[in-house]
Amino acid sequence: MAGAPSSEKLWGGRFTGGQDPLMTAYNESIYYDRAFYSQDIRGSIAWARANKNKGILNDQEFAEIERGLKEVEEEWKSGKFSIKPGVDEDIHTANERRLGEIIGKNIAGKLHTGRSRNEQVAVDMRMWLREQLENIESFLVDLLKVIASRSEQEIEHVMPGYTHLQRAQPIRWSHWMLSYGLAFANDLERLREVKQRVNRSPLGCGALAGNPFGIDRDAMAKELGFDTLIYNSMAGVADRDFVVETMQWGSMLMLHLSRWAEDLIIYSSAEFNFVRLADAYSTGSSLMPQKKNPDSLELIRGKAGRAYGQMAGLMMTIKGIPSTYNKDLQESVEPLLDHVKTVGDSIQIATGVLSTLNIQPKNMLASLSPDMLATDLADYLVRKGVPFRETHHISGRVVALAEEKNTPMDKLSYEQLKGVDSRFEQDILEVFDYQKSVEMRSASGGTSKSSVMEQIKVIKQTIEKK
Amino acid sequence: MAGAPSSEKLWGGRFTGGQDPLMTAYNESIYYDRAFYSQDIRGSIAWARANKNKGILNDQEFAEIERGLKEVEEEWKSGKFSIKPGVDEDIHTANERRLGEIIGKNIAGKLHTGRSRNEQVAVDMRMWLREQLENIESFLVDLLKVIASRSEQEIEHVMPGYTHLQRAQPIRWSHWMLSYGLAFANDLERLREVKQRVNRSPLGCGALAGNPFGIDRDAMAKELGFDTLIYNSMAGVADRDFVVETMQWGSMLMLHLSRWAEDLIIYSSAEFNFVRLADAYSTGSSLMPQKKNPDSLELIRGKAGRAYGQMAGLMMTIKGIPSTYNKDLQESVEPLLDHVKTVGDSIQIATGVLSTLNIQPKNMLASLSPDMLATDLADYLVRKGVPFRETHHISGRVVALAEEKNTPMDKLSYEQLKGVDSRFEQDILEVFDYQKSVEMRSASGGTSKSSVMEQIKVIKQTIEKK
Amino acid sequence: MAGAPSSEKLWGGRFTGGQDPLMTAYNESIYYDRAFYSQDIRGSIAWARANKNKGILNDQEFAEIERGLKEVEEEWKSGKFSIKPGVDEDIHTANERRLGEIIGKNIAGKLHTGRSRNEQVAVDMRMWLREQLENIESFLVDLLKVIASRSEQEIEHVMPGYTHLQRAQPIRWSHWMLSYGLAFANDLERLREVKQRVNRSPLGCGALAGNPFGIDRDAMAKELGFDTLIYNSMAGVADRDFVVETMQWGSMLMLHLSRWAEDLIIYSSAEFNFVRLADAYSTGSSLMPQKKNPDSLELIRGKAGRAYGQMAGLMMTIKGIPSTYNKDLQESVEPLLDHVKTVGDSIQIATGVLSTLNIQPKNMLASLSPDMLATDLADYLVRKGVPFRETHHISGRVVALAEEKNTPMDKLSYEQLKGVDSRFEQDILEVFDYQKSVEMRSASGGTSKSSVMEQIKVIKQTIEKK
Amino acid sequence: MAGAPSSEKLWGGRFTGGQDPLMTAYNESIYYDRAFYSQDIRGSIAWARANKNKGILNDQEFAEIERGLKEVEEEWKSGKFSIKPGVDEDIHTANERRLGEIIGKNIAGKLHTGRSRNEQVAVDMRMWLREQLENIESFLVDLLKVIASRSEQEIEHVMPGYTHLQRAQPIRWSHWMLSYGLAFANDLERLREVKQRVNRSPLGCGALAGNPFGIDRDAMAKELGFDTLIYNSMAGVADRDFVVETMQWGSMLMLHLSRWAEDLIIYSSAEFNFVRLADAYSTGSSLMPQKKNPDSLELIRGKAGRAYGQMAGLMMTIKGIPSTYNKDLQESVEPLLDHVKTVGDSIQIATGVLSTLNIQPKNMLASLSPDMLATDLADYLVRKGVPFRETHHISGRVVALAEEKNTPMDKLSYEQLKGVDSRFEQDILEVFDYQKSVEMRSASGGTSKSSVMEQIKVIKQTIEKK
Repeated sequence: MAGAPSSEKLWGGRFTGGQDPLMTAYNESIYYDRAFYSQDIRGSIAWARANKNKGILNDQEFAEIERGLKEVEEEWKSGKFSIKPGVDEDIHTANERRLGEIIGKNIAGKLHTGRSRNEQVAVDMRMWLREQLENIESFLVDLLKVIASRSEQEIEHVMPGYTHLQRAQPIRWSHWMLSYGLAFANDLERLREVKQRVNRSPLGCGALAGNPFGIDRDAMAKELGFDTLIYNSMAGVADRDFVVETMQWGSMLMLHLSRWAEDLIIYSSAEFNFVRLADAYSTGSSLMPQKKNPDSLELIRGKAGRAYGQMAGLMMTIKGIPSTYNKDLQESVEPLLDHVKTVGDSIQIATGVLSTLNIQPKNMLASLSPDMLATDLADYLVRKGVPFRETHHISGRVVALAEEKNTPMDKLSYEQLKGVDSRFEQDILEVFDYQKSVEMRSASGGTSKSSVMEQIKVIKQTIEKK
Repeated sequence: MAGAPSSEKLWGGRFTGGQDPLMTAYNESIYYDRAFYSQDIRGSIAWARANKNKGILNDQEFAEIERGLKEVEEEWKSGKFSIKPGVDEDIHTANERRLGEIIGKNIAGKLHTGRSRNEQVAVDMRMWLREQLENIESFLVDLLKVIASRSEQEIEHVMPGYTHLQRAQPIRWSHWMLSYGLAFANDLERLREVKQRVNRSPLGCGALAGNPFGIDRDAMAKELGFDTLIYNSMAGVADRDFVVETMQWGSMLMLHLSRWAEDLIIYSSAEFNFVRLADAYSTGSSLMPQKKNPDSLELIRGKAGRAYGQMAGLMMTIKGIPSTYNKDLQESVEPLLDHVKTVGDSIQIATGVLSTLNIQPKNMLASLSPDMLATDLADYLVRKGVPFRETHHISGRVVALAEEKNTPMDKLSYEQLKGVDSRFEQDILEVFDYQKSVEMRSASGGTSKSSVMEQIKVIKQTIEKK
Repeated sequence: MAGAPSSEKLWGGRFTGGQDPLMTAYNESIYYDRAFYSQDIRGSIAWARANKNKGILNDQEFAEIERGLKEVEEEWKSGKFSIKPGVDEDIHTANERRLGEIIGKNIAGKLHTGRSRNEQVAVDMRMWLREQLENIESFLVDLLKVIASRSEQEIEHVMPGYTHLQRAQPIRWSHWMLSYGLAFANDLERLREVKQRVNRSPLGCGALAGNPFGIDRDAMAKELGFDTLIYNSMAGVADRDFVVETMQWGSMLMLHLSRWAEDLIIYSSAEFNFVRLADAYSTGSSLMPQKKNPDSLELIRGKAGRAYGQMAGLMMTIKGIPSTYNKDLQESVEPLLDHVKTVGDSIQIATGVLSTLNIQPKNMLASLSPDMLATDLADYLVRKGVPFRETHHISGRVVALAEEKNTPMDKLSYEQLKGVDSRFEQDILEVFDYQKSVEMRSASGGTSKSSVMEQIKVIKQTIEKK
Repeated sequence: MAGAPSSEKLWGGRFTGGQDPLMTAYNESIYYDRAFYSQDIRGSIAWARANKNKGILNDQEFAEIERGLKEVEEEWKSGKFSIKPGVDEDIHTANERRLGEIIGKNIAGKLHTGRSRNEQVAVDMRMWLREQLENIESFLVDLLKVIASRSEQEIEHVMPGYTHLQRAQPIRWSHWMLSYGLAFANDLERLREVKQRVNRSPLGCGALAGNPFGIDRDAMAKELGFDTLIYNSMAGVADRDFVVETMQWGSMLMLHLSRWAEDLIIYSSAEFNFVRLADAYSTGSSLMPQKKNPDSLELIRGKAGRAYGQMAGLMMTIKGIPSTYNKDLQESVEPLLDHVKTVGDSIQIATGVLSTLNIQPKNMLASLSPDMLATDLADYLVRKGVPFRETHHISGRVVALAEEKNTPMDKLSYEQLKGVDSRFEQDILEVFDYQKSVEMRSASGGTSKSSVMEQIKVIKQTIEKK
């Protein structure tokens, strides 16, 4: 045969015989794509039914195939399915092999009529992913509910808001939580869009050119719960966009979780000390007895990189191939499995952390410093008609005076303030009130109570919108 | 002052004085964010109007600000705006500086009341990007129209379809075009979703805590054409998700363009020779007189990496920051500018290439080989009730026989075929017809004429759906 | 306790009790870091010996620890080690737990004196990786040897060289092989540099601040085969640069393998047909009986993305953390395991493919076309003193004439050539000789025999250089 | 002509005429590759000289070419070179075009004999990069010198060392600086390796197959300062590994800078307040008068993403191409220019920041808390023969007691300590001494003075090693 290595051509390589066991392992996917066993079987039943309706199978053949496939499924479920090493290359091959053993090869051999593994794997992956995304959606809704609920109950607490990690202006603790809440609400909205593009049926696309027996693709799609078809058979088998888009989505969500975790890690340092993690989400040190480390948050933060890496790798893989099915696409499966697990777990851990977090409102309050009201001071004069650019400088001079006198800004006397600018009146001292400061930010999106309550409403509406 | 480098601490570094000119350059964004001059000015006018409505500005002050800003805009448009190096750090600073020169600092100094550059840059970027995405949408629609139109007119031509870059089954040339057409249609659908998340207003978010003068954010959003608000001020200033999502979208589209280009590069090799690029999209060699290279397609393919790189870099940047605004976010601007240009240009070049491409139907036909009908041969017996798994082997034996006899499969005699399997009848020879083969694939998504026409309809509907 | 979730704070989250089983699974690494069991034990023995030498352990205690650890190692080796779920969090914990059971906690409890898991995991990973890289180096040397050997034996065969996938100039088949050979030789050179940075000892760094018992780090490093120490304890525990650098190296090597595979996939298409893969490295189609797909090469190409993804993800993870050990770093282990396996396997598969590949010299020759000698034609006139820019145009006119006459360039008559430029003499017809053309490229690095032989020598020298 | 778009084929695309101005812009590189004008000219002179030595040019022709090229270089230098839009596609074309205008086309037309732009651009990039890397090396050495110098002078100061951002053990401030110093020293070591692979000559490789005039590649390489040749012509023109490797190196260095910046950003927060940036490296807020933001550090951190993105994008680009030159490779130039500038600037800014930083030793000291000595407490008992695992628990009980009594650990009475474990003796109270604690870590790599001084020596040796 043309392709056989002739024995006289020994190039010194490690392998010159007829078989390379490493190649078998390199090629086979059964040890991970068995995750799709159930989807594969449901897809095959729908396939058989549609072929029966076209007369390719008779009623009895279909009944046998259905019965056999359900038995195979039962074997997987109960852990009794025995993979034949080196034979059961992938889940499709394994299932059909076993089916043949159960119902006989004569009928089992008709199942694959007009079908290709190219379409099978695409069907399996889409069904599996659709179900996973349903779960993830419910995890995300849980997280949003915890955010909304805590934000409502802990709305009183005020803490420093930071930009550039420098104290900027006072904000409500709930406002901080909701800043991520809105990002997660966007994630939820986008997830629902992604799901729609996942949930399209490639079944009936064949190897690349379509089905030659006039199979009813709509009926199969309906049976399997797909929303619609993929309308080009080459696209149907070549398309892993649904995987990439899922991973792009998941990587973005993980960025949100990572930034959220980063904030909480900083807030749980001894120097900030705004929050304390529940023991369940912390660990100790093997060397230092006093340590309590926010491992849960660090893992979330670290896994954001991992989730991204799976996306990055697959995008590179897909970038380099021509159209239709190429074996490179097999490399989409393991990254997807890992990515989906990482994302789903991470959301749940985040929900656990947030549900059990203890906040330290006194420390939050103690971290507020009067210079954080410098903008309020400037705004005071704006209300008296002074141009902002001027009030900004005046307020800056007050900050400098306080520094020079080594006195907190709110402990400067009225006379000292008046000395900086004569337009300050007695009521200027009322500016130094953190609760008042946050309540002033009452425009939509601000940190006043009413604005915070509006945000909670927005989140609840997003959850409902489905 | 605390932060000044004391003269006695000379650590041997290159810079110990009060200023570092490299730091000025490292920090300033004016030389690229001037791209947003018009958005910045429109945002400022909306801002001033809203402040007027709240009594922060009187009518005359607002009128002056509006007049001045329009003059500044005119200067940018006509190329007369003169950037002050080292002073005009960014577009916001430059515009306000110039406004002060035109209308006087007293009034100009009131413009920034309650506002932060943190929200300004977010507004500018979103408005600018929204407009760019409108353009890109129209480019994409153009590309889809060319695909639909060519597919309809050239529906007759049949070519080899490949999997694993090995000849697989005959397909229509239009079917190939449409396999990408449907990917681009998905891109269009998704783009419209992305645009909605871009087009949300952060104006009125302040530096991080919201606006203290009760500004009417909805009115400003309406004036500026935004669909809705961002409902948390910290999210408003910290969020570059709209940039990441745009780039995720653009990178996916570029993957599609890259695979499409890869196919055409292979098809325009001398060995395939299915298509010839118009001279306008090819270049010659400085050394080899006979060469005509598909540079346009190679650039598209190469720029897919570039577009991805911008996304990858920004995702990493955002990954590593805590909440709200951090200066790291400035690094989102240049990648966005580059990404958007790359994507927009690449779609247009692709449209140009496809519009002017010459196909070589004879070569396509000549590349079809009878062994590509091996599946049709198997299907023939399936129709006679033989299990597919068996017909697959029978057909394989025919392939082997043809190889052994060194005869094209369709030149085997009826007797020879019958020798392989007695169930072959005289009409088996009719299988060897490429047009018939493609017409057999008439289920939805197949390569038959009716299926191809259905795909064209799907694309047209997607364009209309807006 | 401060961190315990108080029962009245039920935020509606899924988990509010004292334990979260998902957190246990999210946190534990034992199911993958057990790969390091042997390194962990060797590191512990070295640690115990050094502590004995410092008087922390007495001779008998050390002897017991050594004995016990070797027993633990034996259990792992023979598959008898039984992981305690939920207790054996990681390999270090597992080994010490088991040691305590074997030799008693009193002595076992002394092993961890002055030590931290932070340094342990770094030691384990570096030792494990060092050994893996030794293997990979030998795989790479094997590949290079096959390349050198085939290149020498098949030096006669000439094929088209391509730029832009367009036929450019004739080259030797060996020259093609060696173009990758030199890239792999660079990989080998660089691997040896990477290995040096991997093979540095963090043992004795403690949790972050160093060892307080004056442990002899040099002695431990020597015992464990390290080249040198990491000289800052914080760096020692925080540094995963050796992982990143390995992955950067591996990703680059995979880019080489991917481009190599891409070439061979194209060369094994029916249209090119220059090479045929051995059956051992090809697979068939479940639907199309005639197919033989180069799955091995496609998997290599696809796995290049995967290997890159592991690198990309880890770089993002490391980007976002402050100094010293953070739990995020745990996310370096699984990507490393996967990356190293992917790279090692891929090199071996590539060697297998190349060792068993059948070339089709006749088809290579048939693909050479006379227009590929257009540069040689131009060079002919250069030798007669005509400026190259002019000869380039003249040769271009010959190409055009051949196209116009629909005649291969080498079938144009001497008169026709003379008609294009009168400086052509009778010997011009000798230009049309592919072997002569390749032999002309005799400067270093060219495709003549002598240049090709020089390249083989370069590769052999690189292998020896070690 | 075959490739021309025939007028009747109007597919509705935007462009159907003979020229597409967007394609010109999409294709041309002159507006960025002019950065290589000087390298291109030096390369051409070496080329001409070598051709003269082979008799392709006579002495007078060579003299003219050299004179002309130097004039062209002068025009670039002085800003007088006028690019011809649409004609000067790239720097090679531009330089040769201008040379022809200066010395006449007859002689200028001989320059390109046997040469290809494929090799020219590779030569230009390698020479340019080599020079840039020399600069970057000197920047890096400067940074290391500042680290070494500050570490020596400020060795007395003690601060909290963190793991998981939780206070762990006391360390010297210099030890923190040096933890990055050693990472940068590794970067320096690796940079010197990268440079060697950059500095290899592709000149004489031709378009892909080598040089047919027996050009002396060694002589050209020597003239241009290359260390050695690239020994395969296809590799010579196709290889952008030197760009990728540079970017891998630069991305790793930027990870170090990013983590370093992250630490300093946290340390300059009001809550930590260990360091204050010089005004030169900080900026104020447009809204909040009291703010002083560490913009320099945030930009470094952000640009780490950018530098990585350039690497990621190029790796993807290269992943997807077959061997030798493909136009995709043009997309390596702009990323390289940007990457190199980003890295070079960032190192210099870091040096500026570190040179001018004010540390706050009192705040560092105030942040040390007695529980950070819990390990020292445990070690105390270890020295009395108690197994570490037991001492760890005892020390943990002391921590708990202090928490329970709401007393700092070092204020517990001797009796209270004795109550926890009777083996504590009077000298236990001496444990609570931060200076003593750091001095205990005197093994190599520890935070004692002697260990820190050893690290400084290691850095100085690395600088010298060159």
